[in-house]
Amino acid sequence: MGADNQQERLNAEWITGFVDGEGCFYVGINRVEKARLGWQVLPEFRVVQHKRDEQILERMCSYFGFGSVEVNHGDRKEFRVRGLDNLNKLVEFFTEHPLHTKKRMDFKLFSQVIDKINRKEHLTKDGMKEIAEIASRMNMKVIPRFLESSETIRRGRETAKI
Amino acid sequence: MGADNQQERLNAEWITGFVDGEGCFYVGINRVEKARLGWQVLPEFRVVQHKRDEQILERMCSYFGFGSVEVNHGDRKEFRVRGLDNLNKLVEFFTEHPLHTKKRMDFKLFSQVIDKINRKEHLTKDGMKEIAEIASRMNMKVIPRFLESSETIRRGRETAKI
Repeated sequence: MGADNQQERLNAEWITGFVDGEGCFYVGINRVEKARLGWQVLPEFRVVQHKRDEQILERMCSYFGFGSVEVNHGDRKEFRVRGLDNLNKLVEFFTEHPLHTKKRMDFKLFSQVIDKINRKEHLTKDGMKEIAEIASRMNMKVIPRFLESSETIRRGRETAKI
Repeated sequence: MGADNQQERLNAEWITGFVDGEGCFYVGINRVEKARLGWQVLPEFRVVQHKRDEQILERMCSYFGFGSVEVNHGDRKEFRVRGLDNLNKLVEFFTEHPLHTKKRMDFKLFSQVIDKINRKEHLTKDGMKEIAEIASRMNMKVIPRFLESSETIRRGRETAKI
């Protein structure tokens, strides 16, 4: 089997299939006192595997030419992509090679968030709220703490009065 | 995105990537009184997904032109391939499009079992024992009940006496 050579470059469609199964597009919104609004958006892409399959994460990393392989938790490792430049390249990749499962919807929402960050909308409260709302519709239905914070709730009420 | 057309034919490499993440090669060995040896080998291939992604299982089924989509358990559905003719075609597919994760080893063992069944080795006790030993090295380390059965253990002891 040719693929016994583990250094062989992966195929783009293989990556799309693997990510349809194992990938995760995630947008964290975290309390960071020093940030302009007191909140920071942290979009990231992850593929988690048991450490016995670390080689495949390394090969994905080589394929893309960015990201890193880190410990996820216990015996698990992750290929992780952070940083706007890298995530823009990732969005370009999955736009050219579309996902086929429901994960495509997560990707669509994720790319909307990246687009808003490209436009610096995350630096305004309205923009941040929109991002949080998009993020709340993604994968595991994580409700960003930003949306639950008193600031947002207060702001929501004020808006309602208008 | 072109892939919004869910009827579009899947790509072979995409399938390999998805199966590297989500597929399962399995060899069951079950007690069947009517079978020649009292045991039956049931090799099968499965891809399990939440029912929200049933369409992707249907598309895999269309791609291969064999197998079926069935209820797996609760909200989960599976694309399942059984039957020697179909499994031979499946083995041919994954030989031409090699898997890249440790699942490749499961596939290699699985294809050894299919090969033995093609040669009708499962109809002899020795052949069945070899199949059970191969199966015990696969994926979830399921120890086939055949290997634990008194017949096999007795036979093992008898062999040891020689």
